[in-house]
Amino acid sequence: MTIDRTTLRWNGWGPVRQENPLPGDAPQWHWIEETLGLSRLPSTPAVALHDIRLPHTRLSNGTLGKLREIVGENQLRTDDYERAFHARGKSYHDLLYVRAGNLDMAPDAVVYPRSADEVLAVVKLCAEEDISLIPYGGGSSVVGGVNAMSKSLGGAVITLDTTLMTRIVQIDKVSMTARIEAGIYGPALEEQLQSHGVTLGHYPQSFQYSTLGGWIAARGAGQQSNRYGKAEKWLVSAKLATPKGFWTTEATPASAAGPNLNQLVAGSEGTLGVICEAVVKIHDLPERKDYRGYLFKNFQAGVDAARRINHAEIPVAMVRLSDAPETYFFQTFSATNTGGLKAKLQRAYLKMKGFDNAPCLMLIGHEGDKDTVVWAQEQTEEICKRLGALALGTGPGKRWYHGRFNSPAVRDPMMDRGLGIDTLETSTRWSNIANLHEKVIAAIDTAMSANMPEQNARGIVMAHVSHSYPDGASLYFTFIFPRQLDREVTQWQALKRAASDAILMNGGTISHHHGVGTDHTPWLGEEKGPIGMSILKATKREIDPKGVMNPGKLLG
Amino acid sequence: MTIDRTTLRWNGWGPVRQENPLPGDAPQWHWIEETLGLSRLPSTPAVALHDIRLPHTRLSNGTLGKLREIVGENQLRTDDYERAFHARGKSYHDLLYVRAGNLDMAPDAVVYPRSADEVLAVVKLCAEEDISLIPYGGGSSVVGGVNAMSKSLGGAVITLDTTLMTRIVQIDKVSMTARIEAGIYGPALEEQLQSHGVTLGHYPQSFQYSTLGGWIAARGAGQQSNRYGKAEKWLVSAKLATPKGFWTTEATPASAAGPNLNQLVAGSEGTLGVICEAVVKIHDLPERKDYRGYLFKNFQAGVDAARRINHAEIPVAMVRLSDAPETYFFQTFSATNTGGLKAKLQRAYLKMKGFDNAPCLMLIGHEGDKDTVVWAQEQTEEICKRLGALALGTGPGKRWYHGRFNSPAVRDPMMDRGLGIDTLETSTRWSNIANLHEKVIAAIDTAMSANMPEQNARGIVMAHVSHSYPDGASLYFTFIFPRQLDREVTQWQALKRAASDAILMNGGTISHHHGVGTDHTPWLGEEKGPIGMSILKATKREIDPKGVMNPGKLLG
Repeated sequence: MTIDRTTLRWNGWGPVRQENPLPGDAPQWHWIEETLGLSRLPSTPAVALHDIRLPHTRLSNGTLGKLREIVGENQLRTDDYERAFHARGKSYHDLLYVRAGNLDMAPDAVVYPRSADEVLAVVKLCAEEDISLIPYGGGSSVVGGVNAMSKSLGGAVITLDTTLMTRIVQIDKVSMTARIEAGIYGPALEEQLQSHGVTLGHYPQSFQYSTLGGWIAARGAGQQSNRYGKAEKWLVSAKLATPKGFWTTEATPASAAGPNLNQLVAGSEGTLGVICEAVVKIHDLPERKDYRGYLFKNFQAGVDAARRINHAEIPVAMVRLSDAPETYFFQTFSATNTGGLKAKLQRAYLKMKGFDNAPCLMLIGHEGDKDTVVWAQEQTEEICKRLGALALGTGPGKRWYHGRFNSPAVRDPMMDRGLGIDTLETSTRWSNIANLHEKVIAAIDTAMSANMPEQNARGIVMAHVSHSYPDGASLYFTFIFPRQLDREVTQWQALKRAASDAILMNGGTISHHHGVGTDHTPWLGEEKGPIGMSILKATKREIDPKGVMNPGKLLG
Repeated sequence: MTIDRTTLRWNGWGPVRQENPLPGDAPQWHWIEETLGLSRLPSTPAVALHDIRLPHTRLSNGTLGKLREIVGENQLRTDDYERAFHARGKSYHDLLYVRAGNLDMAPDAVVYPRSADEVLAVVKLCAEEDISLIPYGGGSSVVGGVNAMSKSLGGAVITLDTTLMTRIVQIDKVSMTARIEAGIYGPALEEQLQSHGVTLGHYPQSFQYSTLGGWIAARGAGQQSNRYGKAEKWLVSAKLATPKGFWTTEATPASAAGPNLNQLVAGSEGTLGVICEAVVKIHDLPERKDYRGYLFKNFQAGVDAARRINHAEIPVAMVRLSDAPETYFFQTFSATNTGGLKAKLQRAYLKMKGFDNAPCLMLIGHEGDKDTVVWAQEQTEEICKRLGALALGTGPGKRWYHGRFNSPAVRDPMMDRGLGIDTLETSTRWSNIANLHEKVIAAIDTAMSANMPEQNARGIVMAHVSHSYPDGASLYFTFIFPRQLDREVTQWQALKRAASDAILMNGGTISHHHGVGTDHTPWLGEEKGPIGMSILKATKREIDPKGVMNPGKLLG
């Protein structure tokens, strides 16, 4: 039920064999050149694995022997492909390294335990021998969360891949919970649950290539989090293998028996232990799904609608509002939408209606039983229309739904042509959304301009409200820019720093669902404050006194 | 805006001057005698304060002088009334001591700081001088959470009463949050919020005599928690004065910047610091409230209905299901319901309908805008009827709503007549509700029988489902029994131990909303496990290395 590693790209997104969404003759290349002010896009292919020399393993034969004893011969891997595959996650930052052939960070071995007991044995061995251990699920972290860093210079690193632990242990359809092993990928998890008529409903963009354990470790969010909740909300209980032994968190609903420690597990990012299995909340399969589009005259009107939908407590699955640049981008970038009489007529109609300035697309999704979906859809449509929105019907909703996991695949061909593309996300209270949106856009824009490979070149930045709550919402930024090929990492660091500083200075969180990993550690202290950080560090010291669990992540 | 301490009972519930809900000639006394199998109820009045000698203060003049400097002359109290008032909380267990004139636990001084800065100064002084400090809001804890215990035998104890800190600092009607000082009582909080058209909606049974800070410290639940959430759900951010300085927790919605430390504050019970203010989620005042009753043929049918209402994700404010004994108790105990032609006709009708066996009353409350309440009420009624319930209309709902804070006042007159009455609560997953209900009832029943003052005497025990969630619900038990006057505390301990053991052995939590305090500490370790406990203790050591903050609570 797991995915064979060799069928996946070790240095990119998704399967080795997949259709290129941006082949050489795609009309979008011209659009990109024009939009970014570039005369031509260079060819910047990734270095092939067989041209890269990996560092020698730092593990002794004795340790390798003990690992082999624990997980068995076939589940201990030291070949180049496995080590390269597990060197880093899937951030733009990571890809800069691995595409350039820099595999300094490859782990010394990869183990694939098949049970929680095997996981615990590996964790204990690493604690005894002071070897850094990296828990790894789908490896889709975009913040450096699975990078095979050692706790000390030159120290050995083992990556523990959880993806052989994929059983659904129990489904309780009375309590609507399921106990599931943490290494299961999204599609296998949903396929099995849905064969029993239930769903977890957690569909992050990485769904196809991320695991249950990773979602919890990073406090991930699915696209339908309004209905199904973020990981910290659907997590009922977790079983972790820690250097101090198994830790199973309390599972009773809404207990007042002291602080809830599940909320220390969600977001722990492998620094306390390996999540082996979890009890999660499940739902009946929705009888009906209804996704549709609304066009707002400006971003603020859309934000107001999203807020009111939340405050009216109407059951929605998803509210997603693109700002004007993102709305424009998706209208023009998609090849199927360029030109054509229909598009021209649509534009004329929108102009007549007063939408010519900077229209913003909102997608609203409803899932549930038929009656509730019909009722809730009427309620949300009424709110949108009252705020001047144009109802676009189910067309845009269906299109988005169909392609909802596709965006990451666009990055690889872009990186082959000298382009950079990255995303980052935050959240804040409703009264601060407009301000934070404006300031982060400006910070990224300014930093991009200051870090261009040639005169007249420029980057583009856009954003959408991706998840919403009673007290606020998240903002998700995408930026595309020509790379400075002689200083790719430095260029990215400048953009990242500018955006992150702007987020913290303007009341946002350093992450809403990507997590902290290594990339966000410089900003965590400001967000948590000295006492918050001291608590996190004291917890870490208590459970993992030698600091072998995922060193360098979360706490720096 | 706060309540003058001298107008409140130092050794009972509510105001000194209040109508006795059970005067000497009330018809209920006969009912009680008959039901408990007692020939007569003894007179067991409480010892008056002027007959009690309080222990000498253990604070030096130097320390008292420093406290006076921090909080001002009038806010430092060492008189007998203040010390007696703050000696213990309001549990049956506490009342056994204070009514008997045992004030060994009276604090050596009580301070009433007026600002967070003053609180911090008191906390720091206590840490420096190694004096135990007890944070105290309304003092309504029923688990020993505010008892003025010293960290060491004979050590001095200061109680810090927060009830002069009552300002609503800010209301953000865009984000629907409010920043409020933690010492505000329920009625003052709601009065001020509602004058701005908003509500927190947190109405525990102790509402009139408990504070915002206490609700958070104990992970409290209001009666309408389905709509407004428990404290840990509506808490956005808190500011605590700790021995290490101010600690303000992160306030961004659904952040993934590591573990959420607000969930360590909710349930911290004063062991990490004093909650000075909090940002909380607020709601528009509901346009409509609809409370009504349904009668189920048995407990399981009612539990099924509560579960289905939750799983159907219908917006409800409250679902409350009494078991058969509790339904019977409230039908017969209330004097207005005894006898009368109407009651007889009702009973005949119910018998005809097949409800003569053990009918169970469910109260369902809806709050919100008119359309949603109407729609949701139809949905819930349909579910109830499908499960065979008889719709009783709004009458029972209105009666319950009107008297919803009154139960605790019945305890004092009962305790004056040799009776014991206590409550305890737990929660578990839906698939375990019936089992847990049965086992805890049996355990209390057996323990009561084994601890009776005379032959043929007996106790009564009843329960209701008070709060419900997608994955489970809480059970709230009430038991009434004749006291063994020569071993009151021992008798109570036997009942408490039996119930708590049964809860833990049968998959319940030791508390759903009362908290841990001192009374539940023996069971916390089993619930959290050794690693969970070690994390809680490590956090405590980090923030309060000398252990001066509310010693003996939560962690024992």
